[in-house]
Amino acid sequence: MSCVAEARVIVAGASGYTGALAARLVDRHPLFALHAATSRSDAGRSLDALYPYHRVGLVLEELDLDRHGEVEAAIVAYPHGAAAPVVAALLQRGVRVVDLSADFRLRDRAIYERWYGEHGAPDRFGEAVYGLPEIYEAQVASARLVANPGCYPTATLLALAPLARSGTIADVVVDAKSGVSGAGRKATETTHFVSMDENFVPYGVGAHRHMPEIDQELAALGAAVTATFTPHLMPLDQGELVSCYVTTTEPWSQEQLDGAYEVWAERHPFLEVVDTPPGVRDVRDSNVCRIHARADERTGKVFVFAALDNLWKGAASQAVQNLNLMFGLPETLGIEP
Amino acid sequence: MSCVAEARVIVAGASGYTGALAARLVDRHPLFALHAATSRSDAGRSLDALYPYHRVGLVLEELDLDRHGEVEAAIVAYPHGAAAPVVAALLQRGVRVVDLSADFRLRDRAIYERWYGEHGAPDRFGEAVYGLPEIYEAQVASARLVANPGCYPTATLLALAPLARSGTIADVVVDAKSGVSGAGRKATETTHFVSMDENFVPYGVGAHRHMPEIDQELAALGAAVTATFTPHLMPLDQGELVSCYVTTTEPWSQEQLDGAYEVWAERHPFLEVVDTPPGVRDVRDSNVCRIHARADERTGKVFVFAALDNLWKGAASQAVQNLNLMFGLPETLGIEP
Amino acid sequence: MSCVAEARVIVAGASGYTGALAARLVDRHPLFALHAATSRSDAGRSLDALYPYHRVGLVLEELDLDRHGEVEAAIVAYPHGAAAPVVAALLQRGVRVVDLSADFRLRDRAIYERWYGEHGAPDRFGEAVYGLPEIYEAQVASARLVANPGCYPTATLLALAPLARSGTIADVVVDAKSGVSGAGRKATETTHFVSMDENFVPYGVGAHRHMPEIDQELAALGAAVTATFTPHLMPLDQGELVSCYVTTTEPWSQEQLDGAYEVWAERHPFLEVVDTPPGVRDVRDSNVCRIHARADERTGKVFVFAALDNLWKGAASQAVQNLNLMFGLPETLGIEP
Amino acid sequence: MSCVAEARVIVAGASGYTGALAARLVDRHPLFALHAATSRSDAGRSLDALYPYHRVGLVLEELDLDRHGEVEAAIVAYPHGAAAPVVAALLQRGVRVVDLSADFRLRDRAIYERWYGEHGAPDRFGEAVYGLPEIYEAQVASARLVANPGCYPTATLLALAPLARSGTIADVVVDAKSGVSGAGRKATETTHFVSMDENFVPYGVGAHRHMPEIDQELAALGAAVTATFTPHLMPLDQGELVSCYVTTTEPWSQEQLDGAYEVWAERHPFLEVVDTPPGVRDVRDSNVCRIHARADERTGKVFVFAALDNLWKGAASQAVQNLNLMFGLPETLGIEP
Repeated sequence: MSCVAEARVIVAGASGYTGALAARLVDRHPLFALHAATSRSDAGRSLDALYPYHRVGLVLEELDLDRHGEVEAAIVAYPHGAAAPVVAALLQRGVRVVDLSADFRLRDRAIYERWYGEHGAPDRFGEAVYGLPEIYEAQVASARLVANPGCYPTATLLALAPLARSGTIADVVVDAKSGVSGAGRKATETTHFVSMDENFVPYGVGAHRHMPEIDQELAALGAAVTATFTPHLMPLDQGELVSCYVTTTEPWSQEQLDGAYEVWAERHPFLEVVDTPPGVRDVRDSNVCRIHARADERTGKVFVFAALDNLWKGAASQAVQNLNLMFGLPETLGIEP
Repeated sequence: MSCVAEARVIVAGASGYTGALAARLVDRHPLFALHAATSRSDAGRSLDALYPYHRVGLVLEELDLDRHGEVEAAIVAYPHGAAAPVVAALLQRGVRVVDLSADFRLRDRAIYERWYGEHGAPDRFGEAVYGLPEIYEAQVASARLVANPGCYPTATLLALAPLARSGTIADVVVDAKSGVSGAGRKATETTHFVSMDENFVPYGVGAHRHMPEIDQELAALGAAVTATFTPHLMPLDQGELVSCYVTTTEPWSQEQLDGAYEVWAERHPFLEVVDTPPGVRDVRDSNVCRIHARADERTGKVFVFAALDNLWKGAASQAVQNLNLMFGLPETLGIEP
Repeated sequence: MSCVAEARVIVAGASGYTGALAARLVDRHPLFALHAATSRSDAGRSLDALYPYHRVGLVLEELDLDRHGEVEAAIVAYPHGAAAPVVAALLQRGVRVVDLSADFRLRDRAIYERWYGEHGAPDRFGEAVYGLPEIYEAQVASARLVANPGCYPTATLLALAPLARSGTIADVVVDAKSGVSGAGRKATETTHFVSMDENFVPYGVGAHRHMPEIDQELAALGAAVTATFTPHLMPLDQGELVSCYVTTTEPWSQEQLDGAYEVWAERHPFLEVVDTPPGVRDVRDSNVCRIHARADERTGKVFVFAALDNLWKGAASQAVQNLNLMFGLPETLGIEP
Repeated sequence: MSCVAEARVIVAGASGYTGALAARLVDRHPLFALHAATSRSDAGRSLDALYPYHRVGLVLEELDLDRHGEVEAAIVAYPHGAAAPVVAALLQRGVRVVDLSADFRLRDRAIYERWYGEHGAPDRFGEAVYGLPEIYEAQVASARLVANPGCYPTATLLALAPLARSGTIADVVVDAKSGVSGAGRKATETTHFVSMDENFVPYGVGAHRHMPEIDQELAALGAAVTATFTPHLMPLDQGELVSCYVTTTEPWSQEQLDGAYEVWAERHPFLEVVDTPPGVRDVRDSNVCRIHARADERTGKVFVFAALDNLWKGAASQAVQNLNLMFGLPETLGIEP
C-alpha cells in the first residue's frame, strides 16, 4: 500500500458546509494528506475561524492550479455550474476528482440543460462514474472522475435499490426531509434561525433538481418510474430521512422483504437494516445509512424509511468513501462507522 | 344571545396539554365561564404552576360530578377508554359535551374495539357527532355530544375534502408530521428532550389509531379508500403538517384545483388556501388550517399540504369552535384567526 | 373615551420583527386603528407574506409623510440613527411618537455620540420620556415622544428597581440571555440556523450599547454603579432572561426582599413576582415580566432573575403599553396578560 | 508499551448518558478493550438499542463482580451515593477506578454529608485524586482511584485556574449554562421536550451540589472565596458555558491576562485559549475546553468564558483522559482534539 500512502488531496470550495467537512475528513485520514483547502469568498481566513468544531487550522486560499494542481486527488465542492470547468482543469492535470456538485451526475445532457442550464465542460460530460459506492463500487474503483450523488438521491436509492432491482416497483412516493445545513451556508430569509425554528416546511414542490437524478438511477436499477419526490426542511442542523411508499407490481411478504434487505446490507459496511424505523439522530456524524423496510398489509404497499446525515453520507464522507475506492483502499478507511 | 351569556363550562382532565389549553381558551372566552378544571394526577396544583404561559390561576380539582355537573357544558380531555364513562355521566346530567378522546369518533363498534379495546359506555356509542365543523357544522349545532377529531384526521380531512367529495381519489399517501406535544405530557424515553432534539423519527408505522378514523371520514365524503398514513415526530413543540399525494381517477388541472379549494375555503373562516406550501409556524397558536393544493404535471398526481397547530385546531381550539356552534354562537368567538 | 376611539396609528419600519409585531398589536387593538405599515426594503409585499402568523393583510408601503403623517400616533421601528429624522418630522406634524430605536433613550448627548455617532435630530434630543411605564408612568402619560427602552434595560431595570431605589446596590453583575430574534431579521452568518442551532454564545462583551442605558437608568433610580453586563445568544426564537447578582451595602433578608418586590409588583399589572426562578417560556408572547428575587445566605448577595419576551415587553407590546398611557387608556388594553 | 496494551475496562452504569459515552470511547480506544458494560435498569438490552449513534453492539449486563472484577480498570457511572460501595469493591479487587459520581470528589467528609448524606464507603474517603488532569496530572498518574470532576467545576476551574493561582481573586460570580443532557436520562417533567423547547431556566439557585466542589478546588489553587454559582438549563442537548465575572485584588491588563492564559494553555492539549468568546458548539463532541479571558476596563473586572461539552470534557472523555494518565499513556489517546 506504499504507493498510496500520503496521497495529497485538495478540497476546492472548502468554506461551505460540505467542503469544510470534506477537508476535516481528509485531514484526519490515515492515508490522505490535506494539501490545501480553497475558497473564493473566504480566502485568508482559517477553516478554524469558520468552523471551530472541525479543528482544522489550515488557512483557506484562492484556488491556483499551478500550486494546487500538483496533487493526486481533489474533492470539488463548488456550486452547480461553477464546478465543471474546475473539474475539467484538474482532470487535465491528471488529478483524480470527486465532484460534489450535480455537474456530472446526469447522463443525458438535454436533461442536464433543462434543470441546470448550459454545461461548463461539455467535453467531459458522460465521463464520470456516479459515485454511489454501494451500487457502482467497481466503476468507482477505476474512475478518474466521480460524480458524488445528491443527498436525497443517496438516501432514496439506498432505500429502494433491492425493490428497484427486483423490477417490481410500479409507483413510488418519496417524502423527504432534510436538516437546514442542506440549504447551504448562504444566509437567507429561509435559513435565518427565526424562520426555521419551530418550523417545518415543504419546498421545491414539483420541481426539485434531484428528481431527474433519482429517476435516472432508479431506471438504471430496473425501475422505470417517474418518482413522486417532495423535500421538506426540518428545524435541525444535520440529518435526512426519506419515507418511501412503494406500490408494487407483485405482493411482497415481510419475509421476502427482510431477506432482500439483509442481502443488500450484508455486503455494505455502511448500510444498517433495522427492524424499527430509524431516526435521523441514529446516524448523525457518520457515513451510515439506516434502513427499515415494511410490507404493509393494510394497504398492500411496501414502506421503506432511510436515514442518513446529509453532510456526511449525503455529501462529504461519501466523497471520502469514493476516494478510498479510487485509491484501492478499504472503503471505510478514515470514516469507520 | 342572553340565554347563552356566561355559559358555565368545565374542563375535565385539564392537566394535559390539550385540556390545559382548552381551559385557557374557555377562561378568556367572552361568553363562556371556566367553572372548574379537574385533574386526577395534579389536583391541588394551580394550572398556573403547570403552565405559567396560560395565565389561568384556577386550582385543579378532583372531578366531582355533584359539584361539577351543574354546568351547561364540558370539555373532556381524558385518555381514550377513560373518557367514555365520564362523558356518559355528564350527558346523563344534561351537560353538553365535547370529548377530545377517540371514544366516540368511530361509528363502527367492532372497529373501535379492534383498535382501542372494550368501550366504556356502549349505550352512548353512535350518539356523537364527529366534530369537524368545516364538514359537520349543522349536525354539531344540534348535538349534545361532539367527538372532537384527532389532530391527524383534522389535517388530512381538511386537506382532502374537496377531492374526496369529487369522487376522484383512487389512492392517497399521507405522510404526516407532528410536534412533540402531540405525544402528550407524559415523560417518557421518547419525549425526553435529548431523544427528540436534532431528531426526526417515524412512528406508529402501519398501525396508528388515526387510520380507521381517517378512512371512515374519507368514505363519508365519497372516497372509499384505504389511506396510506404514516406519522413522524418533529423536533418542535406545536405544529403539524400532512403531505398528501393523491392518485386520481381523472386528471385535475391546476385551475380546477384552485377553483375547488377556493370554494372550500371561502365558506370557512379558519381555512386559508395559499399558493405556496405552508410551514407549521404559519399557523402556530391559532385555529387556522393552511392548505396548498398542486396539480403535479410530472407525475399526474395531486399534492395537498395542510398545516395546523396540533394543540389548537388539532384539539383544544377546535373543541371551542364546536362549543360555539353547539351554543348558537359564531364559530370564531374567542378563537379569532 | 370617545375622543380616543379609533386613534389612527402608523408603524414605520414594519418589516422587521418588532415593527411587524407592533403592527399586529395595533391592528387588533380595540381603540387603535392600523392606518399604515411602512417599509423601505419590502414595500409592496403584504405583511402576511413576511409573517403569516401575524395575520395582518396590509400591504407595506414606502413612508410618505404627506399621506402617513395625518394620524394621531406613530410607532417608529427604524434602525438607530435612521430613526431620529423621521421621529422629528412626525413630531413636527403633531403626531405622537413611540420610538423603538435608541435615538432618544439617552439623556447625555456626549454619551449618545460615543456609542452611536452623530445624532440625527439634535434639536429634539432630551425631549423624550424614557418609556418604561412601570417607572415613568406619569411622564409617559403626558409625553409627545416616548423612547421605548431596549430589551435588556427593560428586563434589568424591572429586576433591579426595588434594590436601586433602596440605595443599597454596591455592585451588580447582569448576565443576560436573548433569543435569536433579538439579533434582528437580517440574514447573517450569526443568525443562520446552523450557526445558532445547538449553540449558545456570549456577544458584545465589554461593549454593548445597552450599557450606558442601563447605567443611566439605574443612576436615576438611586444606584450610581457601573453595571457589569454581558449578553448571550440562546438557540431559541423569543425570550430573554437576566440573571442579576447584586452586592449590597447592607444585608437583605428574604423577608425584606419579598416585601419590597411585592410592593413593586402589586401596582403593576405586567409584573409577576414568583417564588421560583422563571423560565423564558413562562412569558412567551406576552407583555409580562416575571421576577424572582433571592437573598443568598451563602454569599451574602441578592440574586434577581427576570424573564420577558424580547419582542413583546422588550419592544413591541411595551410600545403599545406606552401608547395606551399617552392616550389616557388603561395600560393593559389590547395586551392583556 | 506492551504492558498496557489491551487493558480491559468495564463501564459500570452504562445506560446513562455519560456511562454510555464512556463505553463508546473505551470501545474505540486503541489500547483499551471494553470488557463489559453494565446496567441495572437496562440489563439485557444492547447499548445500540439505547444509543444507536454510539454504534456499540454490546449487551448490557447486571454487574457481577466475580465476572466483571477481573479487569485492569473500571469507569463507574453510578448515581451519587450508590457509587461508593461499588468503587470500594472494585478497588478491593485491585481494579483501578475512575468514578464519575461525586462520592469521592470532596475532601471534607462533613461537607460531603451535608450535601449528599451518609457516605457509602467511608474507609475509602480521602483516597481519591481529584481528576482534573490539567491541574492534578502527576497525582492522577499514580492514582488507584480518581474522582472525575463535575461538569461545572471542570469548566469553572479551567476558566479560573490562572487567576486563582495568582492569588488575586477577591470575588467571583459564575453564571453557568448546561444542555439538557446534564439533567440525566431520567424522563421527568423538567426533561420533557415540551418543557425545555424554547425555554431557558435557572435551577439549583443557591444550593447546587457543585458549589462545595468549586470552592474546595478554588481554595486549593489559592483563591479562598465563596464563589457565587448559578446554573441554568439551555434548550440544547450537549454543551456547557460558564461566564465568570471576577473582582480582583489587583488590576489585570489585557496583556497580563493574555500572558497568563497562554502559559496555562500551552502545556495542555485540550485547552484552547481564543480571542473571541467561545460558543458551546465550538467544542461539541470533543474533550476540548475553549477559554476566553478579558480585562474589562469599564468595570475593572476580569471576565472569563469557558465552553466545553458536558458529556465529554465534563464527564466521559475526561474519564478516559484520566485513565490514559493512570496507565502511563499520552493523555490524548483515543480522544484526540
